[in-house]
Amino acid sequence: MNSTTYKAIRFHQPGDVSVLNLEDLPLQQPNAHQVRVRIAAIGLNRAEVMFRKDQYFESPRYPSGLGYEASGVIDAIGFGHNGGANGLSIGDKVSIIPCFSMRDYSVYGQSAIVPAYAVTAYPSHLSAMEAAAIWMPYITAWGALIDTAQLKSSDTVLITAASSSVGCGAIQIAKAAGATVIATTTSAEKVPFIEANGADHVINTQQENLVNRVMQITQQRGANVIFDPIAGPGIHQLAQAAAQRAIIFEYGALDSRPTPYPLQISVAKGLSVRGYNMFEIVTNGQAIARAKKYIFSGLQSGLLRPQIDHRQFTLEQMRQAHQHMESNQQQGKIVIRVNGT
Amino acid sequence: MNSTTYKAIRFHQPGDVSVLNLEDLPLQQPNAHQVRVRIAAIGLNRAEVMFRKDQYFESPRYPSGLGYEASGVIDAIGFGHNGGANGLSIGDKVSIIPCFSMRDYSVYGQSAIVPAYAVTAYPSHLSAMEAAAIWMPYITAWGALIDTAQLKSSDTVLITAASSSVGCGAIQIAKAAGATVIATTTSAEKVPFIEANGADHVINTQQENLVNRVMQITQQRGANVIFDPIAGPGIHQLAQAAAQRAIIFEYGALDSRPTPYPLQISVAKGLSVRGYNMFEIVTNGQAIARAKKYIFSGLQSGLLRPQIDHRQFTLEQMRQAHQHMESNQQQGKIVIRVNGT
Repeated sequence: MNSTTYKAIRFHQPGDVSVLNLEDLPLQQPNAHQVRVRIAAIGLNRAEVMFRKDQYFESPRYPSGLGYEASGVIDAIGFGHNGGANGLSIGDKVSIIPCFSMRDYSVYGQSAIVPAYAVTAYPSHLSAMEAAAIWMPYITAWGALIDTAQLKSSDTVLITAASSSVGCGAIQIAKAAGATVIATTTSAEKVPFIEANGADHVINTQQENLVNRVMQITQQRGANVIFDPIAGPGIHQLAQAAAQRAIIFEYGALDSRPTPYPLQISVAKGLSVRGYNMFEIVTNGQAIARAKKYIFSGLQSGLLRPQIDHRQFTLEQMRQAHQHMESNQQQGKIVIRVNGT
Repeated sequence: MNSTTYKAIRFHQPGDVSVLNLEDLPLQQPNAHQVRVRIAAIGLNRAEVMFRKDQYFESPRYPSGLGYEASGVIDAIGFGHNGGANGLSIGDKVSIIPCFSMRDYSVYGQSAIVPAYAVTAYPSHLSAMEAAAIWMPYITAWGALIDTAQLKSSDTVLITAASSSVGCGAIQIAKAAGATVIATTTSAEKVPFIEANGADHVINTQQENLVNRVMQITQQRGANVIFDPIAGPGIHQLAQAAAQRAIIFEYGALDSRPTPYPLQISVAKGLSVRGYNMFEIVTNGQAIARAKKYIFSGLQSGLLRPQIDHRQFTLEQMRQAHQHMESNQQQGKIVIRVNGT
């Protein structure tokens, strides 16, 4: 990065990791209501893998950047007709909340221009790496478990694919609400990590029967809230493991096979299968304000502790970082170090 | 019916209408907390067709009676240790609320013993035929639209298979809430009947594109609440016709094909696909009390008007009545006349 150019990841067609290129781009000035952030760390999300493959809910415009979540330092502020950018100053350490379309903004680079409303200060005890690992996981989990399901201490929550960054966030948020947490993984190696995050029970679904274990743990009542990014045919087991009137959040498609609707059991138990994505929170001013307040408070108190995967990558290693995400080996958030962080 | 025997429908194995037999049974005395009702009229429900075929959520115990809903006159009361049966008296005109298992109780006959908590007075302006056509339709629709979805006047409700008794009840309840009602049918002949029930828009799905019409009517917003007993692959169109954060109630399986879960569109729009059956209301003392209050008031004011199919059947013609239901030709509730009603 010099004064006129910066390096950023772009892709010119959908595909595997080889479409990701590190390119030199001219440094731009932010427009009104935008800020420019010198990036310190980038948090990776499954959404970006799907966007790269053009399997996301919106398609890239080529050449396309990508990336939702990062931390860094404001180094330029655009001024608009309302005379400022929400009290932000050059030099502020901020993290970027994924509340925009990757068709318009992207953060995989040494620098990123983002809307002023997308940046926020973060608690000072967090590292830049941790500050890039907050918003997608905690907002996603908070919106489902707290804002929609209104989790209470008598609830049992079943969290699948629990070693992901969102899974870790969901465990911490559910435990903060006093609920009983049952987490699943397909990997024996990940069990200690998931337990360390606070799960009361971890089910290795390669070795144990999910429905039997959940029913045993809940004394045959089933789980009240289920938080699932997998979908596919496994939804039948989730419905069997659900309590009367449970809510099953579907927020991803890790299993690419078609997802059947468990009609008979849903009618019998009064189940809600609730499609969900974080944008219903971040596009709602009141909801995002509630989320930020909750998450700040949880980070300050230590109830929320960002989990960062142990493998380290630089911007130049973005292809490997995406490969690592697609391998499903990570434990917590994959974070990229940028600009010498 | 004489003083020692009565005629009732029973079946000894699952199957088509030919398994239904009219049999002479010995008249019994009600036990504690039960009453015996001399039946005047029986309201038919799709649940009974499914129960006859052993496709219901619970299986018959053979020889099995069937039937959930009827009206009549109390002619015997069982007394228990609490000294009475909820203020009921011999000679009271009552209707029977379907709040029991057909494995335990059934009303297809000249007489029926039912739990005392299942009988209730009905507004005096209703005929016995109408009094047999109240509870399943209105409780089912009320529980979904009012108690769960909390319908408001700004909502648009999409009601499929709208000529059924539950569909008619749902239209009336949605209109009473001030909502905009879009109803669907597959039969041009039923359109005037559905309009007469109060639907603002009727879509004949054999002739018109459901999604386009709903989007046109709602100015591209979609329907907020969808009330669907069909399920099957058509759920995809319902999801396409749904508004952001809509709730789609699935309360039946008229389409016997598998029901796919519309994952991508549900995640994008935040849709809830909510399995539902009336038992979550009738097994909840507070909910059934709210339902009864609402329905009584609606019947008294005339906002709720039970709709009875024009074809007439007697108890001896139960096979034909079931055939009629399975033909999907009915408009409103199929009601059987009993004991010379």
